[in-house]
Amino acid sequence: LAADDALPSWRPGATRDAVVGFLDAAAAVPAERRVAVFDNDGTLWCEKPRYVQEDFLLRELSTAARTRPELAQRPEYHALLHHDQAAIAELGLERLAGALIELSAGLTPEEFAHRVTEFMSTGRHPDHKVTYGQMVYQPMLELMDALRARHFTICVVTGGGTEFVRAVAPDLYGVPPELVVGTLIEYAYEVRDGVPVLLRTARVLGQPNEGKPKVSHIQAQLGRRPIFAAGNSAGDREMLEYTASAGPPSLALLVNHDDADREYAYQSRSATLDEAESIVDVAGREGWVVASMRDDWTTVIEATAGR
Amino acid sequence: LAADDALPSWRPGATRDAVVGFLDAAAAVPAERRVAVFDNDGTLWCEKPRYVQEDFLLRELSTAARTRPELAQRPEYHALLHHDQAAIAELGLERLAGALIELSAGLTPEEFAHRVTEFMSTGRHPDHKVTYGQMVYQPMLELMDALRARHFTICVVTGGGTEFVRAVAPDLYGVPPELVVGTLIEYAYEVRDGVPVLLRTARVLGQPNEGKPKVSHIQAQLGRRPIFAAGNSAGDREMLEYTASAGPPSLALLVNHDDADREYAYQSRSATLDEAESIVDVAGREGWVVASMRDDWTTVIEATAGR
Repeated sequence: LAADDALPSWRPGATRDAVVGFLDAAAAVPAERRVAVFDNDGTLWCEKPRYVQEDFLLRELSTAARTRPELAQRPEYHALLHHDQAAIAELGLERLAGALIELSAGLTPEEFAHRVTEFMSTGRHPDHKVTYGQMVYQPMLELMDALRARHFTICVVTGGGTEFVRAVAPDLYGVPPELVVGTLIEYAYEVRDGVPVLLRTARVLGQPNEGKPKVSHIQAQLGRRPIFAAGNSAGDREMLEYTASAGPPSLALLVNHDDADREYAYQSRSATLDEAESIVDVAGREGWVVASMRDDWTTVIEATAGR
Repeated sequence: LAADDALPSWRPGATRDAVVGFLDAAAAVPAERRVAVFDNDGTLWCEKPRYVQEDFLLRELSTAARTRPELAQRPEYHALLHHDQAAIAELGLERLAGALIELSAGLTPEEFAHRVTEFMSTGRHPDHKVTYGQMVYQPMLELMDALRARHFTICVVTGGGTEFVRAVAPDLYGVPPELVVGTLIEYAYEVRDGVPVLLRTARVLGQPNEGKPKVSHIQAQLGRRPIFAAGNSAGDREMLEYTASAGPPSLALLVNHDDADREYAYQSRSATLDEAESIVDVAGREGWVVASMRDDWTTVIEATAGR
């Protein structure tokens, strides 16, 4: 299949030409160097109005609070259960995230994965009313397939929880668990009643997988330098610049959320960027390829196409 | 190919029957659960009279000391360069290992890998006089191939340095870098003269990959529970017991070094085992399959076969 036939949801133009040009050039690269990394939230699936994992954690909290009402007394849980924005702001994200992580402490990896897949098959996106699994960007799935057809090793490098994304990556993306790099929770190994078990703790292992740690973690877990990277936020900046400098050929692709009609319109900023700059500005300056949702994609989400 | 034709270096008998029985039973297991993990030192290649990586690090030290003679003044390096056993014992392994790790701080992953492959192609095993790459156990290579033919994902889970083993695993074992789990060194990400680089530090990331951490790290890096594990030392105990309880079918295989003529005769003991027990005793008690180098293998090392 020619590269340009494999990307039906990409509108002809400079962006698609750059992608097709990279796919063609990659044929000359030794197979072991054909490594592609994709950020997840906002790059492969929708991250608005909230991260999918945030909705998962809030549902876990609601479920737990039904059988253990005393949980609602804890300030962090109280604020979240009552959508108390003032208290949420005062407590801070780190403390809230830590409290939510505690909810799954003591679960085995299999038990946690089961909760995730249960959520994914029953939960609905608050605005679009389809399942979260249907909020995956069709053009990115086509790009993954085109890379796979060229014998790329396809990896998901997420700021979210590694095990959360692993539970869905094989079905949604065809990516096996070992090729998902994310934020890890420490495990404890115990022999309980003669049976060895691995149990989640409430501690994050190392650093959250955003910014510079994304690059270190790619090397630590995958051991290979990517020549293709796709991202959308300030937390992807280092991964994109590290990848861009691995070529030629190499491709750093930034998804620009500029489609308020079909998805959302926003640009990621962060403390690691100059105040005046968004990640889209950085992409322009660095010469990365920017995919405009509005202009470059004929379809954003298959389930809502044509609405 | 039938399983028993694929293992020519395995002598007919109870051990080979158990291995073949597992290979046959695995056909009924869903493909995503067909995960096999192999310890490296003493399980896939010879670890006597010293670990291969120890020889590598000592050669790195000698090389560095030739151009930077002041290194020899540092107590740890002085002891190692002069084979001063009393000083070595007094300084302790942890401090010596830390000093040796410092020698590769500041290298990129590619530079470090180049040093390893250079060493592997020129270094010689002190007793057998063949290259280190030739000191791989032929029956284990056949077993890897038999598992691969049954669509297993084959992983190396080593107590040694992850990046050291990654540099050789594709060629020696056909195992890609992302399927090597070991002891990790932290990386630092920097942009140097406009070029993004990843540099080795002198810090171990998390815990050394021995004992319980082997199990946690398998889940953290691979995200799947193995149904086959091979090991040879006390540091493999938890990995073997975790794997054994993942079935049926499952296979925990212990390589017993009982062949002083063709390899070495020794049994691993450690503080985590009862004083009176070796890992071979544990295997007997737990019902693991024990491969006797002397009795179960017709060939140990291809390069020295028939000597």
